[in-house]
Amino acid sequence: MMSQPKSKTLSDSEGPVPKAVVNRLSLYLRELHRLLRDGHQTTSSSHLGNLLGFTDAQVRKDLAYFGHFGYPGIGYRCQELIDAVRRILGTDRIWPVAMVGVGNLGRALLGYKGFGLQNFRIVAAFDVDPGRVGESIEGVPIYHLDKLTEVVRQQRIKLGMVVVPATAAQGVADKLVAAGVEGVVNFAPVTLVLPETVSLVGVDLAMELEQLSFAVVNRGETGSADE
Amino acid sequence: MMSQPKSKTLSDSEGPVPKAVVNRLSLYLRELHRLLRDGHQTTSSSHLGNLLGFTDAQVRKDLAYFGHFGYPGIGYRCQELIDAVRRILGTDRIWPVAMVGVGNLGRALLGYKGFGLQNFRIVAAFDVDPGRVGESIEGVPIYHLDKLTEVVRQQRIKLGMVVVPATAAQGVADKLVAAGVEGVVNFAPVTLVLPETVSLVGVDLAMELEQLSFAVVNRGETGSADE
Repeated sequence: MMSQPKSKTLSDSEGPVPKAVVNRLSLYLRELHRLLRDGHQTTSSSHLGNLLGFTDAQVRKDLAYFGHFGYPGIGYRCQELIDAVRRILGTDRIWPVAMVGVGNLGRALLGYKGFGLQNFRIVAAFDVDPGRVGESIEGVPIYHLDKLTEVVRQQRIKLGMVVVPATAAQGVADKLVAAGVEGVVNFAPVTLVLPETVSLVGVDLAMELEQLSFAVVNRGETGSADE
Repeated sequence: MMSQPKSKTLSDSEGPVPKAVVNRLSLYLRELHRLLRDGHQTTSSSHLGNLLGFTDAQVRKDLAYFGHFGYPGIGYRCQELIDAVRRILGTDRIWPVAMVGVGNLGRALLGYKGFGLQNFRIVAAFDVDPGRVGESIEGVPIYHLDKLTEVVRQQRIKLGMVVVPATAAQGVADKLVAAGVEGVVNFAPVTLVLPETVSLVGVDLAMELEQLSFAVVNRGETGSADE
């Protein structure tokens, strides 16, 4: 009989897991889903690494933070590794999410299919515009911001998305935290200050473009000799 | 007379600059803008670090990749450092950007003010939906996808944003690259394969939430003893 793969809890590992590793787990998950969809039942660290431009050693090292998932002579079973990674990321359960701010970007995010695929359900949206409050977009009810504490507590919402203008972002984030939210994604182009017990991810879409302009400018200046 | 700060070209530095450093430059830039807006003419590595949760040594090390920007007894002059960082990131010039896909998310991005602030101008959008082609959103004309090569070449567009469904993303990215684009931001939840000469940044908004669910789950399991 084949030995079962073991997974360990995070308390077994030495020190916290680097953010970059958690980030790569998300990437592995996407590739594993694609492999399975394409009919692959198993894969290997080198195959998985190849698809993403990482070495096989990198893939093995990342996964080793969380346990032993491979089988000798077989590699990884895709579905099994998907289940394990989802357990690690916490997306084996459904996460109700609150969104604050239903402007253009908020509306787009309400229709973004990628959230649902990973078990994130936006269950309540908030705004102060009387023309929006009471409406429902993609099945998500829009409440007045005054209702935030009540709704977040009632629905035991732990994750919030801040999609308001920069000047309003800190106030909105404070309100979410006071209501019991433990993780905040901030889309406003401003740095938020939150208690250490709350996790924060900032998304500034212009920063992604800056990474590209940097690469293009510096490739132009230093890379031409090698091409 | 005060000595002028020196900046060096990237070819002076040993090895390529890590991506995380370039990412932090974007963060420094945002804080410097805010400091200046709040009336601060100068700042220090410890102040700047404090605002972002980094050590002063980290700030100094990051900036040292690109030159010497501080003055003894004064620290950094905010406007001067802003200008320097913009030069390093390439955002001291205007970047025309092409966007492909004008669904909900595409429309939201067309209205996203953060791009313009950093000198990124979406000058052309593309779609295949006859109901959208010929329209103009936020002053940006929407062309048929068939016009992509022509428009990108004519306007010398070097950066492209892929905002189409996952199944169409690779094809669209290939088209952008063939037309001369050197940097691609991909919003489709799929890994793209592009030539090494092209820079690629993937934005999967569900991944940001996964970082949070991971943090919340693992704080719950391992952090409670310390709180």
